[in-house]
Amino acid sequence: DVSFDPKEHQHLRYNPLRDSWVLVSAHRMKRPWAGQVEKPPEEHVPRFDPRNPLCPGNTRANGEVNPTYDSTFVFENDFPALQPDAPDPGSEQHPLFQSKAARGVCKVMCFHPWSDVTLPLMKKQEVVSVIDKWAELVEELGSTYPWVQIFENKGATMGCSNPHPHCQVWASNFLPNEPALSDRCQRAYHEKHGEPLLLQYARQEAEKQERVVVESSHWLAVVPYWATWPYQTLLLPRRHVLRINDLTTEEREDLAAIMKRLLTKYDNLFEVSFPYSMGWHGAPTGLHLKEDNSHWQLHAHYYPPLLRSATVKKFMVGYEMLAQEQRDLTPEQAAEKLRNLPEEHYRTREA
Amino acid sequence: DVSFDPKEHQHLRYNPLRDSWVLVSAHRMKRPWAGQVEKPPEEHVPRFDPRNPLCPGNTRANGEVNPTYDSTFVFENDFPALQPDAPDPGSEQHPLFQSKAARGVCKVMCFHPWSDVTLPLMKKQEVVSVIDKWAELVEELGSTYPWVQIFENKGATMGCSNPHPHCQVWASNFLPNEPALSDRCQRAYHEKHGEPLLLQYARQEAEKQERVVVESSHWLAVVPYWATWPYQTLLLPRRHVLRINDLTTEEREDLAAIMKRLLTKYDNLFEVSFPYSMGWHGAPTGLHLKEDNSHWQLHAHYYPPLLRSATVKKFMVGYEMLAQEQRDLTPEQAAEKLRNLPEEHYRTREA
Ligand SMILES: O=P(O)(O)O[C@H]1O[C@H](CO)[C@@H](O)[C@H](O)[C@H]1O
Ligand SMILES: O=P(O)(O)O[C@H]1O[C@H](CO)[C@@H](O)[C@H](O)[C@H]1O
Repeated sequence: DVSFDPKEHQHLRYNPLRDSWVLVSAHRMKRPWAGQVEKPPEEHVPRFDPRNPLCPGNTRANGEVNPTYDSTFVFENDFPALQPDAPDPGSEQHPLFQSKAARGVCKVMCFHPWSDVTLPLMKKQEVVSVIDKWAELVEELGSTYPWVQIFENKGATMGCSNPHPHCQVWASNFLPNEPALSDRCQRAYHEKHGEPLLLQYARQEAEKQERVVVESSHWLAVVPYWATWPYQTLLLPRRHVLRINDLTTEEREDLAAIMKRLLTKYDNLFEVSFPYSMGWHGAPTGLHLKEDNSHWQLHAHYYPPLLRSATVKKFMVGYEMLAQEQRDLTPEQAAEKLRNLPEEHYRTREA
Repeated sequence: DVSFDPKEHQHLRYNPLRDSWVLVSAHRMKRPWAGQVEKPPEEHVPRFDPRNPLCPGNTRANGEVNPTYDSTFVFENDFPALQPDAPDPGSEQHPLFQSKAARGVCKVMCFHPWSDVTLPLMKKQEVVSVIDKWAELVEELGSTYPWVQIFENKGATMGCSNPHPHCQVWASNFLPNEPALSDRCQRAYHEKHGEPLLLQYARQEAEKQERVVVESSHWLAVVPYWATWPYQTLLLPRRHVLRINDLTTEEREDLAAIMKRLLTKYDNLFEVSFPYSMGWHGAPTGLHLKEDNSHWQLHAHYYPPLLRSATVKKFMVGYEMLAQEQRDLTPEQAAEKLRNLPEEHYRTREA
């Protein structure tokens, strides 16, 4: 009998945060690729572009003029998917035609006045300002809205249409599907095992080390055991923390440092400004602030699409959309690759 | 008070097949697009390419020579994600590190000997041959495997690396996430309402007409009330049918005709060979053949990515990955656009 080797033999892994499975078929990396190649991202973005609506002092689509900001800058999305005042669709009776009211607010947050920097290339204190602003927005919007989704789409491959470093914050009057599922999974785990799922997980990973990418005294970044995207990571505090606004000053400084290290490794992997979508999940807010949310643990998900090179991504298509997600290298292989990369950014080395 | 208008006011809609919600923000279509544009698909594919491993008589990566086939042609994928004989990973004890054996088979199926045709441009009887072969594969692989996933990735945007008309068939020893979820939802609906979910749904849509794209005596194609992709459709039989191999000769002929009509409309929408991932869902097979699966109804999902034009797709990224799917036009708007398109293919009109 052949003995099991995860790098050679396909298998399923369980994702306890989504109660689902991923198919791991690492031997698929051997197949040649003759399909679509992405355009590599523009490496020489001008620091200031008078036509870019995100730059300081410029005029946006709705005629508003940006201040000449010198740190972060937050404004309302000019084409929001969520507005505060949409009317109720009314109570449709048939169970197959159900709709509900959706209300909320969509904000855009610039990380820095310059268009030619990204988080890994910013100064640590500048990243701390971003984290402080995230915390402030969760505090403010979370006082009434049950969910505040902070997310960053980086790179044209991830639908980002502006190279200026920025993220978005969408707050809603409903708990969206993904956090609702994560909430159910974390609650059930906590009830059964008496400890928050992700607290136990971080401890296990810190011990095992094989999926750790970077770690610090307060934080841990791993390629999770159940990762679906090739170089997906999960960023976790070691302490039990419910929400980003609960982080101490020291934890924020340490978070800025580990984010810079993780994102530098990402950029160094294919020597390209690494595209991804990322976002924070913490305990629900609004009316949930009064509930017991001790099953929750704050964390960030990074979902980068690239698989083979700066221009070849993983396509989550037919089988993945209709049946189940499938990955072409093991999470341990991905973690090892990232871990072994230098912590100095390839662009500062060039300079 | 403003009265609710689904085209103007964002709202949530319930997907009863996935027990989840989609955010509909139709007013977002107004925003300008400055992001990534796709390369339009190659319109002039040669009928025969001596280097294309899918063409009749050519040699594939593993040295095997294709027969000079003149209808459909099925072979085993040279880089399969599922193989019949992978060893068991063993029983890992910790609930956060669970894995399972995955076994199966991956087949590729060419639709036609020519590279320069697609399903809408093939003769009706040639499409019937494709349907007959699908039925045969479900019958054959389904005799032992609990799930047989037929899917087509069409177009480079959907990760398809070969322009020759083909699909894939992956059979597995496990019920993947998506059909497992759909099974749970259909079962619960059937128990509660005494009728299969999709049978009731098809009847309702045939009556309402507002989301119908094309219909025939045995079939119905609609943009479902809960569609997430801009021009997503659901293809349904009117009769209660569990699996594709249960279709009568007449139903297969009628299916070929409606597929040609639907796919012609897709191609006509932006006058481009329309990319999509599609696949069939029917009652589970293998050990499930002996169970009562009367809650199931056979159906096909079409997931096309294009939103605005032949080169601008919908990006399901940050908010969609981390919170909830969001769409930029109503399903009714999408259905109306498709319904009003001619049933003659733009390429035959040109000729
Ligand atoms: O098997 P193919 O066509 O080479 O590969 C394509 O379809 C597969 C199944 O959906 C995906 O896993 C791959 O990412 C995609 O590129
Ligand atoms: O708001 P943006 O950056 O224009 O749009 C981008 O992010 C949104 C939220 O993930 C998506 O819905 C859009 O498809 C994507 O293009």
